[in-house]
Amino acid sequence: MTDTGTRSRARIAEPGEGIGLDELALATRNHGLPLEALRYDVTPPGLHYVLTHYDIPAVDADGWRLEVTGAVDRPLTLDLTALRARPALSTRVTLECAGNGRARLEPRPVSQPWLLEAVGTATWTGTPLAALLGEAGVSPGAVDVVFTGSDHGVERGVEQDYARALPLAEALRPDVLLAWEMGGSPLPPQHGAPVRLVVPGWYGMAQVKWLTRIEVLEEPFEGFQNAVAYRLKTDPGDPGTPVERIRPRALVAPPGWPDFMTRERFLRAGPVRLCGRAWSGRAPVARVEVSTDGGRAWTDAELAPADPAHPYAWRAWTADWTASPGRCELLARATDEAGDTQPLEQEWNRQGMANNLVQRVPVTVLPA
Amino acid sequence: MTDTGTRSRARIAEPGEGIGLDELALATRNHGLPLEALRYDVTPPGLHYVLTHYDIPAVDADGWRLEVTGAVDRPLTLDLTALRARPALSTRVTLECAGNGRARLEPRPVSQPWLLEAVGTATWTGTPLAALLGEAGVSPGAVDVVFTGSDHGVERGVEQDYARALPLAEALRPDVLLAWEMGGSPLPPQHGAPVRLVVPGWYGMAQVKWLTRIEVLEEPFEGFQNAVAYRLKTDPGDPGTPVERIRPRALVAPPGWPDFMTRERFLRAGPVRLCGRAWSGRAPVARVEVSTDGGRAWTDAELAPADPAHPYAWRAWTADWTASPGRCELLARATDEAGDTQPLEQEWNRQGMANNLVQRVPVTVLPA
Repeated sequence: MTDTGTRSRARIAEPGEGIGLDELALATRNHGLPLEALRYDVTPPGLHYVLTHYDIPAVDADGWRLEVTGAVDRPLTLDLTALRARPALSTRVTLECAGNGRARLEPRPVSQPWLLEAVGTATWTGTPLAALLGEAGVSPGAVDVVFTGSDHGVERGVEQDYARALPLAEALRPDVLLAWEMGGSPLPPQHGAPVRLVVPGWYGMAQVKWLTRIEVLEEPFEGFQNAVAYRLKTDPGDPGTPVERIRPRALVAPPGWPDFMTRERFLRAGPVRLCGRAWSGRAPVARVEVSTDGGRAWTDAELAPADPAHPYAWRAWTADWTASPGRCELLARATDEAGDTQPLEQEWNRQGMANNLVQRVPVTVLPA
Repeated sequence: MTDTGTRSRARIAEPGEGIGLDELALATRNHGLPLEALRYDVTPPGLHYVLTHYDIPAVDADGWRLEVTGAVDRPLTLDLTALRARPALSTRVTLECAGNGRARLEPRPVSQPWLLEAVGTATWTGTPLAALLGEAGVSPGAVDVVFTGSDHGVERGVEQDYARALPLAEALRPDVLLAWEMGGSPLPPQHGAPVRLVVPGWYGMAQVKWLTRIEVLEEPFEGFQNAVAYRLKTDPGDPGTPVERIRPRALVAPPGWPDFMTRERFLRAGPVRLCGRAWSGRAPVARVEVSTDGGRAWTDAELAPADPAHPYAWRAWTADWTASPGRCELLARATDEAGDTQPLEQEWNRQGMANNLVQRVPVTVLPA
């Protein structure tokens, strides 16, 4: 990491300032989940959200090597054949970008302008990281494990390969994988080919793609993505607190049909089965409530049975509604078993991260 | 098609008006090709551009039927098994959205705000439409063939299933396919599962997805997507001319590395092999010229050998450059065998369609 400038502050848009071409350039290259695709239990290829800080790198799988180094007894270097020969498991996980919902915040932090579509659920296949660290022999004084990808760029003046650390205890969880397959196929380039990290329950910044290096540290990692980016703070001088596990969120698959340009929604009066998904990286989803009158009255949605094999995958929910002609606003709110829920008023921070404000879906109900 | 309002005019943004939340809602749900993915001859799954006017419909492949009707001797209804039992062929085709480049136009037509990434190349497998029309027996008076999808929405007050007509002569081309595979796999939902139309050489609006109905007409089709949308006009009262075949375009795979937020590009001084792709739906690409000084001097790029088996797929090009420290602007310009080329000044129309203004890639060259 070369510091080629100052670690300048994240920019906040002026009141009423439209989305700039810089933000649009991020929106057109990063992919969101069209919300009707909440209908799929597992997100079909190409519809899972993707955020890449820099370019998608061109990695030659034959020449690829993974280095395990730092405060370990036996540094390791593995090629793809060696990694794939290790014991493998598959896990279905919902991933969400820490910046999901950012573009609706007021004032708007200037960065990737997600509305609410930075989410997806996939089955990842790989080998547990813990066993590999066990073979390398982690030093008793280890505190952090740093994961470095081959994606290269500049951020607020700092030229870097993308690198993020996990606390050692998280890195040793049995469900943290070095994954080489997504949905039973080799990783596509945009999801980290040939190998990425998958940390169920954490926001996307922890899921390092195009992985090349794992380094065990005996002191906390001070790299850009942990120390500067991905921190919750409201004052630019505040060091803030780290962004970690995904807060609970429910999303409604918008009913009816859209206007192409405005994305306004229309449906016909009568019985409607509302459906959607809910997830939390902190504890299983315990409850989803739905409002069809802008948040005045709430009723419990019906949750699909929990699948203990996939504790970090989203859970389907449904709620029956009899729509009457007129305009109304649909809301859904998830609560997890830890008691965390979603706010109805925004909780703002300077980078617009880990925001889980309740979604509002305005619809126009037409006569039957 | 029910006209539930007026066919109001497309909106043009005010000078200096930022991208609105309506345009952003389109940008976050529709997918562009990150330009570094120009490196792939065939676009990997999930990186091909996608534009859906309305929602991606949920189509049950088992219950799916295709109707061939209208001015034919023998109306037909086929299920997926019957369609897939027909003679199949595969074709590699570059598709581009008619609105590509719209967001850089001044003033900006308000619609899907593509910068330059609405393109992709895929191998499509399906059965020739012409043979199916032959079996149905097209009336001697036929002029248009209308293709209707199951995607449903509203556009400028008109509620509709997406429907587009082709002139009969185009529909009878031997390379126009009813496709059920993309890259050797069943179509993904966002690309038209289970069956879509593929019309090599035409902009994306002709490539009707989620196809359910083919109707032969003895008079010109007057539906919304042909008569109102997808027309080139500068005056709102002008009926305009239809958008049809893809104009020539070359794109540069931006060299070096980006700034995450601003997408500014950096590279080190020294020899650089510039590369990219060029295509035209009107005639084979004959020439690509490159400028590294903002358009003052131009040199010919080297074109990869033409592949006669894939006349509608993009063609790779390269150009060697010795980069010196400082800021400069890279341009590439394609010309096809019909003599069509790309303008250096924008050719504006009210819907920002079929614009092929030369791309400009500003880069900062750092000392070696």
